[in-house]
Amino acid sequence: MTYQHILDACGLTAAETTGGTLSVTTPVDGSEIARVPMHSVADAEAAIAKGVEAFEAWRKVPAPRRGELVRLLGEELRREKENLGRLVSLECGKIYQEGLGEVQEMIDICDFAVGLSRQLYGLTIASERPGHSMRETWHPLGVCGIITAFNFPAAPWCWNAALALVCGDPVIAKPSEKTPLTQLAIQKICDRAMAAFGGDAPEGLIQTLIGERDLGEVLTASRDVALISATGSVPMGKAVAADMSKRLGKTILELGGNNAMIVAPSADLEMAVRAIVFSAVGTAGQRCTSLRRLIVHEDIYDQLIPRLTKVYEGLSIGSPLEAGTLVGPLIDAGAMTAMEKALEQACAEGGTVHGGGRALTDQYPDAAYVAPAIVEMPAQSAIVHTETFAPILYAMKYTDLDAAIAMQNAVPQGLSSCIFSTDLRETEHFLSAQGSDCGIANVNIGPSGAEIGGAFGGEKETGGGRESGSDAWRAYMRRQTSTVNYSRELPLAQGISFEI
Amino acid sequence: MTYQHILDACGLTAAETTGGTLSVTTPVDGSEIARVPMHSVADAEAAIAKGVEAFEAWRKVPAPRRGELVRLLGEELRREKENLGRLVSLECGKIYQEGLGEVQEMIDICDFAVGLSRQLYGLTIASERPGHSMRETWHPLGVCGIITAFNFPAAPWCWNAALALVCGDPVIAKPSEKTPLTQLAIQKICDRAMAAFGGDAPEGLIQTLIGERDLGEVLTASRDVALISATGSVPMGKAVAADMSKRLGKTILELGGNNAMIVAPSADLEMAVRAIVFSAVGTAGQRCTSLRRLIVHEDIYDQLIPRLTKVYEGLSIGSPLEAGTLVGPLIDAGAMTAMEKALEQACAEGGTVHGGGRALTDQYPDAAYVAPAIVEMPAQSAIVHTETFAPILYAMKYTDLDAAIAMQNAVPQGLSSCIFSTDLRETEHFLSAQGSDCGIANVNIGPSGAEIGGAFGGEKETGGGRESGSDAWRAYMRRQTSTVNYSRELPLAQGISFEI
Amino acid sequence: MTYQHILDACGLTAAETTGGTLSVTTPVDGSEIARVPMHSVADAEAAIAKGVEAFEAWRKVPAPRRGELVRLLGEELRREKENLGRLVSLECGKIYQEGLGEVQEMIDICDFAVGLSRQLYGLTIASERPGHSMRETWHPLGVCGIITAFNFPAAPWCWNAALALVCGDPVIAKPSEKTPLTQLAIQKICDRAMAAFGGDAPEGLIQTLIGERDLGEVLTASRDVALISATGSVPMGKAVAADMSKRLGKTILELGGNNAMIVAPSADLEMAVRAIVFSAVGTAGQRCTSLRRLIVHEDIYDQLIPRLTKVYEGLSIGSPLEAGTLVGPLIDAGAMTAMEKALEQACAEGGTVHGGGRALTDQYPDAAYVAPAIVEMPAQSAIVHTETFAPILYAMKYTDLDAAIAMQNAVPQGLSSCIFSTDLRETEHFLSAQGSDCGIANVNIGPSGAEIGGAFGGEKETGGGRESGSDAWRAYMRRQTSTVNYSRELPLAQGISFEI
Amino acid sequence: MTYQHILDACGLTAAETTGGTLSVTTPVDGSEIARVPMHSVADAEAAIAKGVEAFEAWRKVPAPRRGELVRLLGEELRREKENLGRLVSLECGKIYQEGLGEVQEMIDICDFAVGLSRQLYGLTIASERPGHSMRETWHPLGVCGIITAFNFPAAPWCWNAALALVCGDPVIAKPSEKTPLTQLAIQKICDRAMAAFGGDAPEGLIQTLIGERDLGEVLTASRDVALISATGSVPMGKAVAADMSKRLGKTILELGGNNAMIVAPSADLEMAVRAIVFSAVGTAGQRCTSLRRLIVHEDIYDQLIPRLTKVYEGLSIGSPLEAGTLVGPLIDAGAMTAMEKALEQACAEGGTVHGGGRALTDQYPDAAYVAPAIVEMPAQSAIVHTETFAPILYAMKYTDLDAAIAMQNAVPQGLSSCIFSTDLRETEHFLSAQGSDCGIANVNIGPSGAEIGGAFGGEKETGGGRESGSDAWRAYMRRQTSTVNYSRELPLAQGISFEI
Repeated sequence: MTYQHILDACGLTAAETTGGTLSVTTPVDGSEIARVPMHSVADAEAAIAKGVEAFEAWRKVPAPRRGELVRLLGEELRREKENLGRLVSLECGKIYQEGLGEVQEMIDICDFAVGLSRQLYGLTIASERPGHSMRETWHPLGVCGIITAFNFPAAPWCWNAALALVCGDPVIAKPSEKTPLTQLAIQKICDRAMAAFGGDAPEGLIQTLIGERDLGEVLTASRDVALISATGSVPMGKAVAADMSKRLGKTILELGGNNAMIVAPSADLEMAVRAIVFSAVGTAGQRCTSLRRLIVHEDIYDQLIPRLTKVYEGLSIGSPLEAGTLVGPLIDAGAMTAMEKALEQACAEGGTVHGGGRALTDQYPDAAYVAPAIVEMPAQSAIVHTETFAPILYAMKYTDLDAAIAMQNAVPQGLSSCIFSTDLRETEHFLSAQGSDCGIANVNIGPSGAEIGGAFGGEKETGGGRESGSDAWRAYMRRQTSTVNYSRELPLAQGISFEI
Repeated sequence: MTYQHILDACGLTAAETTGGTLSVTTPVDGSEIARVPMHSVADAEAAIAKGVEAFEAWRKVPAPRRGELVRLLGEELRREKENLGRLVSLECGKIYQEGLGEVQEMIDICDFAVGLSRQLYGLTIASERPGHSMRETWHPLGVCGIITAFNFPAAPWCWNAALALVCGDPVIAKPSEKTPLTQLAIQKICDRAMAAFGGDAPEGLIQTLIGERDLGEVLTASRDVALISATGSVPMGKAVAADMSKRLGKTILELGGNNAMIVAPSADLEMAVRAIVFSAVGTAGQRCTSLRRLIVHEDIYDQLIPRLTKVYEGLSIGSPLEAGTLVGPLIDAGAMTAMEKALEQACAEGGTVHGGGRALTDQYPDAAYVAPAIVEMPAQSAIVHTETFAPILYAMKYTDLDAAIAMQNAVPQGLSSCIFSTDLRETEHFLSAQGSDCGIANVNIGPSGAEIGGAFGGEKETGGGRESGSDAWRAYMRRQTSTVNYSRELPLAQGISFEI
Repeated sequence: MTYQHILDACGLTAAETTGGTLSVTTPVDGSEIARVPMHSVADAEAAIAKGVEAFEAWRKVPAPRRGELVRLLGEELRREKENLGRLVSLECGKIYQEGLGEVQEMIDICDFAVGLSRQLYGLTIASERPGHSMRETWHPLGVCGIITAFNFPAAPWCWNAALALVCGDPVIAKPSEKTPLTQLAIQKICDRAMAAFGGDAPEGLIQTLIGERDLGEVLTASRDVALISATGSVPMGKAVAADMSKRLGKTILELGGNNAMIVAPSADLEMAVRAIVFSAVGTAGQRCTSLRRLIVHEDIYDQLIPRLTKVYEGLSIGSPLEAGTLVGPLIDAGAMTAMEKALEQACAEGGTVHGGGRALTDQYPDAAYVAPAIVEMPAQSAIVHTETFAPILYAMKYTDLDAAIAMQNAVPQGLSSCIFSTDLRETEHFLSAQGSDCGIANVNIGPSGAEIGGAFGGEKETGGGRESGSDAWRAYMRRQTSTVNYSRELPLAQGISFEI
Repeated sequence: MTYQHILDACGLTAAETTGGTLSVTTPVDGSEIARVPMHSVADAEAAIAKGVEAFEAWRKVPAPRRGELVRLLGEELRREKENLGRLVSLECGKIYQEGLGEVQEMIDICDFAVGLSRQLYGLTIASERPGHSMRETWHPLGVCGIITAFNFPAAPWCWNAALALVCGDPVIAKPSEKTPLTQLAIQKICDRAMAAFGGDAPEGLIQTLIGERDLGEVLTASRDVALISATGSVPMGKAVAADMSKRLGKTILELGGNNAMIVAPSADLEMAVRAIVFSAVGTAGQRCTSLRRLIVHEDIYDQLIPRLTKVYEGLSIGSPLEAGTLVGPLIDAGAMTAMEKALEQACAEGGTVHGGGRALTDQYPDAAYVAPAIVEMPAQSAIVHTETFAPILYAMKYTDLDAAIAMQNAVPQGLSSCIFSTDLRETEHFLSAQGSDCGIANVNIGPSGAEIGGAFGGEKETGGGRESGSDAWRAYMRRQTSTVNYSRELPLAQGISFEI
C-alpha cells in the first residue's frame, strides 16, 4: 500500500492534501506526503462564530438524541478502523498496532458516551426549608476548543469530542501542525455520521482548524470558547493557562509526564519486563504516559537490568507500517537531537547508556529512527527530572519503599506511575495517600495504556485535567444549583430573621 | 456592650489587638477598634513550611478521625455563636442577625463535613481486562490557602476549612485586611478544638496570616500551597489565576456576581417584595450574591416598583448591632464614593434614582451609612453590567421571557439568579439549558442566602469554583485512578498486541 | 402480509411453531397462529443447570466485553425492529406503532447497558483505621429468571436481560403462555448476537422456557436461580414472593398499577386530552401503567369530560396491524368478560358509562374488540380501587388538591401517577413527600410511556422492584463491602480494646 | 457497682423494671435483674397508629432539621456511653469493652446520619424529550419496625433508627425478650433528645414495644408498617419474609452468618492469631459475624493451630463486667446445650475438640460460662455448615486457594468472610467476582467488627439486607422517578406516534 493509498482510503482529497502551505512529512521515511492548506485567523474566528450558532441549536437537542450522533460516529469508526489506524501510523510514526489501538479507544469512548447520554446525572438534595426542593443539574457549556498533539493525533480528540457532543457542546479541533491529516480524516468520518444523523445536527457542530499556534491563540482568546482542552507540553499548557486566566475561561490540561515504575523484590519479573518494554518503547517513547524512570529494588536490580538490556537489543526497529516492527521512528530530527542531548547530559551526570544510537540511517536517511536507550543512573539527577520525548529509560536502585516513593514523587510532573510487586502491603501503600502523587497509579501494569473507563490525567505540572471515563464529562458542562420554593412562605437559610 | 467587650468576649487579647500596624476600624461608626500586628512575608513562608509538615502527619490520620476535629470545632462554634456573630457585625457592619447567620453556616458545614469524613467516596469501576480491578480514590491534596473578603469574614473560611480539614489538608487563612479580628477569633476557637482533640492534630494544621496583598502573593507563588481558594473581586481573582497559571496550581475562585431577579406576571408579589428587599439590602448590598438587577414583566412593573420604593423608604438604617436595624453601613468611605459614582452614571444613562443618599451623617460622621437605592433604568446600560458593591438595585422591564433571560445572561458574571413565577413552564425553562447561565438559579427565592447542602459558586467571570455542599469537597483532594493487575497475564488495553 | 409471513420474517421455524401443545391465538381475529412445543419441568431444571455453568464462565468475562455482546444484540434489534414489532402486534394485539415502541425500548436499554458495562460503579470509602482501605464492589449475582406478561412480551425481557448480561448473569426467560412467539423470536436474535460475539459467550447464557406456571415455579424453587424478576399481576407477585421467602432469594416485582391523573384548573386541556387518550386507550388499556383513574378539578370537569367522550367516540378501533388503528383488541374473551363485569359493578356503584361495548363482532367474531369506556363515578368506590386490565377510565371530581392526592394514594397499588397543571406550587407539591406515593410521578405527561433512563417500578402492592435505568442494574449484582488492612497493626473498629 | 446501680444509672425506674411479667436475667450469674411489664397486642396496634400519625408530621420536617434530632441523640449517647455500655454488658453478657463498642457505633452512626440529612441524594437525569426534565427523588417511607436480637441489644437499633429518623420515618423497636432493658434505656435517651429538640418532633416518633414474638407479628402484619428491619436467626427471617410477602411489604433482613477465615501461607500469623481470637471468642461467639470456620493452608496449619489452642487456654473467662475478662458467658443454658450438642456432633463427624467445656460452674452455677472451643475437622461436614451461636471454631486444611474459596462459599449463609494473606494476587482474587460470596469480605481483618461507613449485611440466607453506611439509607425511603413536561408539546417516549 503506497502512502497515497493510505490517504485515499481515508477519503482525503487532492484539494485537502495538495497545494497548501503546511508541509506534512511522514516520520516513516521523512518524505512529504501532503501540503495541506492552512486556516487563517479569520477562518478561526468564523469557526467560533459558527460554533456559537451551533451551540444555540445543539443544547436544545435532548442528550439521548445527541448520544445517537455519537453512536453513529462510533459505527463509522468501526468501519474505518483499519484505514484510520494506518493513517495514524503513517503520519505520527507509531506502529500500526498502536494506530489501531487509538481508533479502538475512539470507539470505546463513543460507546461509553452513548450510555452517558441517558445519565449526565446531577443530584436532588435535601433542603433545610419546608416546601423547598433543591437540585443540581448539569447543562451544556458552549463551544469547546480541542488542541491535540502529534503523538496521539486521534484518540484524545475523541475522548474530548465524544463527551462534549453528548454534553451539548460543539467542538473545534486544532491538531498538531505535524499531524493534520489524521484530523482531516476524522472530520470526514464525523461529516458522514452527521449526515446519517439527519436534520438536528447543526452546521458547525464539529469543526477542524488546520494551522499553527496562532489558531490556538484565537481559541484561547475568545470569550465564545467556553473550554479549552489542551494536550501537549508543560510550556504549552502554561501558555494556555495564562491566556485563559485573563478571561477566567475553563481548561482541561493534559500535559507532560515523567512516569516511573517501582520494581519491588516480590515482582513477577517476567511480567515486569514485558510491561517495561511496552511502556518505555511503545510509540518510540513519545507517549505522555511513556515509562521514563525505573526504580528497582537493589536485591533484584542485577537480575532485571541485564534481562532488559538484552530484550532491548533484540527489539525490531523499522517502519511502523510493517508487521513485526515494535519500534518506529521519532517524529522528526528535532526529537532525535533532543534525545542525543539528553543522553549526553545523562552521561555527564554519571549515567551508563545502553543502546540509544541512531538506527536505519542507510535505509531511511531522512527519518529519525533510534535504538531505545536504557541509562543506569547513580542517582535521580537533573536530566531524570526532565521529560524528554524519546525512548530513554533511566534506571535507578532503591533500598526502602518509602524512599522509592519519594523518588517517584520528586519530579514536577504527576501523570502516571506504577509498582510491580505482589506484596499487598507494598501495593496498597503505593496506592494510599502516602503513595504515588500521580493521577494514575497502577499495580503490575505499566504507566501507559489506560482504559477509557477511568478518568485520565495527572497532578502538579501535568495540569490537573481529567478526560475520558468516570465523571470527566462534567468538565464539558456547567453546574447549576437550584432551589425551588413552592410554598407560600419565604424562610431564609440559616434561620436568619429579616422582617420588613 | 462596648466594642471592647465584644472583642474580649471572643477572647482576643491586647497582644493581638493593640500595638500593631494594621488599623482596624468598625464601619459602625468609623472608629478604630484595634491595631493588629501584621505578619511578614517571612512569617508567611514559615507558615507554609509548618503547613507542609502538618500535612505529612495529617494525611495519615484516618478521615473519620479528622472528622472528629471538625465535630469539636462545630461544638465550639455552637458555644461561641453569639460572641462571634457580634464580632462579625462589629467588624464588617452587617446586622447582628446576619452575623449569627454566618456562624450558623459555619456550624452547618461542620456537621456536613463530619458526615463526609466517613464518605469521601471514590469509585470502583469495571475493568475491560480479566484479573484486573480498577478504582478511583480521592487523597489529601496539601496545604490550602484560604483568601477571604471583608463582607463574609467568617462563613467562607469555614466552608473551605471544614472540608479541607476532613479531606486531610492543613489550612492557612488570609482574611481581608479590613476584617482581621473575626479571623483571629476563629483561630482561637480552632485552637480550643485542637486542644480538645488531642495528640494527633499536628501543629500548623490551622493557621492565620494577618496582612495585605503581599501575603496572598506568597501563598499563590509557593509550590507548597496546593490549592488557593479565593473569595473576592474579579480583578483579584484574575490576578490569582494568572499567578497560579505559572505553576499550574489549583484554585477555587468565588468572585463577583451581578445577580438578577426576573419577576413574572404570575409571581406572588408579596413574597417577591420580601425576597427583593432582603437580597438587595441585606449586608448593605455587599454580598457577592446581592440582588443587583430586577427584570420585571411590563404588566406588573407599575404594581411592583411603587411597592418596593415604599418599603425602601421605611427601612430602618442604623447600627448593625442594634435590634431592629435592617440596613447597616457600607464598609468604608470608598464604598460610599463608588456607590455615588455608580448612581451618577446611572442617571447619565437615563436612570431614575429612588433613595440612595447618605444617611445618619450627623450621628455617625465617620461611617458610611447610605439609603438603599432603586434605580429605574430604560435599558440594561453599561453601569448595569457592572458590579457595584453597594445597595443599588437597577429595575428594568421585559416583555418576553426569553428576552428577560437574555438580559439576565448578558453580564460577564455568572453567580446567582432567580425568577419569581408560579408558572411551571416559565420556572423550568428558567432552570433549563436555555435558562439562567449562573451557578445558582432559584425559583421564588432571592439570589442570596444559599443553603450549605448545595454547591456554591458561579460561572464565567465569577470564576467557576464551587464551595460548601454537594461534592465541592473534591476540590480539596487529588483524584487517583488506579488499576491493579492481580492476574498472571499482562493484557494491554484496547486489545493492543505487542509481543517482545 | 399474512400472519405466517410475520412469523417467517422473524425466522420462526415450523419446528418451533407447529406440532406443539401450546396453542397460540392472535387477538387480532382469535385464530390460532401456532402450536408451540412446551418445555417440561425437567427441561427447566436442565436449563437452570446450564445457566449455572454459564455463570461460572460469564462472570469471568470482563464487564466491558460483556457489554459488547449487548451492543451486538442492540444492532440485531435495530435490524429486526419492524419484523419483531409486527410480531408483537400480532401476538399481543397492541397496535404496530406500540409494537415498534417496544422494540425501540429494547434498543435503548441495550445502548444504555453498553455504557454501564464500563461503570458498574461501587465506592471507595474513607476508613476509620490507619493503613486500611475500604471498598464496595458489585459482583455478578447468578442465574436470573425473567417472568414476563402478555401485554409487554418484548421490552421487559430486554430491560432485565440487557442489564443482567452486562452485570454478568445468565438469563432464563419464561414468557406468558399467551405470547411465546415473541420470546422465541427474541431468542433467535440473541442467538445471532452470540454467534457474532464469538467464543467467550457460554452456552446457556440466554435461554427461553415455553410453558405454563409450573415452569415459573421451578425457577422460584431453585436455589440456583439467584434472582426472579417477575412482571404481572399482584396475585402472581405475591405467589412469587411467598415462594422466594422460603429460600430468601432475591426478587424484582413489577406488578399491577391503578394509575391516576389529577387534572388541575391550570392544566393545558388540549395536552391533557391527548395524554389521557393515549394512556387510557393505548394497548387497549392493558398496560400496567395504563391510566385508570381521572381526578378532575370541579371547575373544569364539565369542560374536560365531554371533550374526552367525544374523542373516545371517534377513536378508530380495528386490527392493530393496520395503519390508522388506535385501539386494538383485548387479549382474549376473558379480558372482555372482566371488563363487562367491571362496568356492571361501576354502574351498581353509581357510575355513568360512556362507551365500553363490544366492537367489530361481525368482522372479528372470535376476537375481543371493545370500545374504550369512560365511567363517571360519584366517588372512588370499590371498583375504582381495583385494577381491571381493560380500557376503562373512571372519572371523578375533586375540590382541593390535597384531597385529590389522598384519592390518588388511596388504592393498594403504587405504580404510576401524574398531574396536569401549570402551577408550580401544585406540581412540586405533587412530587414532594406529601404528594404522590407512586414509584412514577409525572407532570403534564400521562402515567404510561416511561423513558428507559429512569428507574421503572412502583411501591406498595406494585411490589417495590425497579428496572431499566438509573441504578436498577444493582438488583442484578451482589454488593461486597471489603476492608483491606495493609498495615502491620490490627486496630479494632469503634476503638475496642481486646488484648490477648 | 451493683446490678441495681447499673439500672439506676441508666434512669430505669421501678415502674419499668419491676412488677411485670417478663423476667430478665443477667447471663453474668443467671440472677433475675428485672421483671418488665410487657406490651399487649393492642398496645402494639396503638403504637403503630401513633407512628402513622407521627409520620404525617415528621415527613414534613425538612431532613436537615430531622438530622438535628439525631445530632442531639448522638450528644446524649456520648454522655451516657459508660452507663449504657455497662447495661449492655450486664444484660447480654458481652464484656464491657464490647458494650462500649456498641455505644460507640451508635454515636458513629448518628454523626454519619447528621451528614446524610443534607444529602439524601437522588438524581437529575437527561431526558430524551425536549422541554422535559427527569428526576429521581427519595421520599420518607413510613413507620419502620425494628426487630433486634439479644446479642446486639443497642447498635443495630441505632443503625436503623438514626437513618430512619433522618429519612423521615418513625421507628418502633421490638427488642429481644431476653434484653429489653437496654432498649428501655435507649428509649429514655431518645426521649431526652426529643425534649431538647423541641416542638416539631411528634409524639410517637420513637417507640419501644416490650414483649414476645406476637408483638413482632403485629408489626409484620400491619400495612401501616412500611418496613420491617429484622436482625436474628434465619428461621426468624424466613418467617418475617413469609409474612411480608403476603402484603408485599419491605424488609431489611440481617440473619445468620457462618463466617470463615482463610489463612494463606504468606499470612502474618501473629496478626492472624489476634484476629481469630477476637472474632471467634468476642461476645462469646454470639455475634452474627463471629468467626466459625478457619480454613488454613496445609503448610502453616501445624504452626497456627497449636499457637491458637495455647492462646485459647490462656483466655480469661469471667464476669463481663470485670476488667481483664475476655470471655463472658453465653446468654443462657439453652445456648450452652446447643454448644454441647454441636461439639458432640462434630466429634461424631471426625472432629478433635480443644477446650469447649463448661466453666466457672462453682462460681456461677446458674450462668452459662464455657471455655471456647477449637475443633479440628477432617472435612467441612454437616455440623460445620450449621451456625451454632457459641464460641466454636472449626479448623480445616486446604491445599489450593480456589478450593478454599469453594469451601468458604459452600454454606447457605453469606454474611462475612476474610482472608489473611499478604499476597496481592490471592487477596484480590478473594475479593473478586470469583472470590468470597459474602456481603462482607475482609483482608487481614477478622470477619467481625465492621466500621459503620460501609454497608453491613449479607447474601443468600443471611437475607440480603444492608444497614449502616454507604447508601443503606435508601432502604428507609421510597424512590420516585418523575418527569416534568414544561413544553407545549406532548412527545411520546420511544418516538411512538399516536395521533388522535
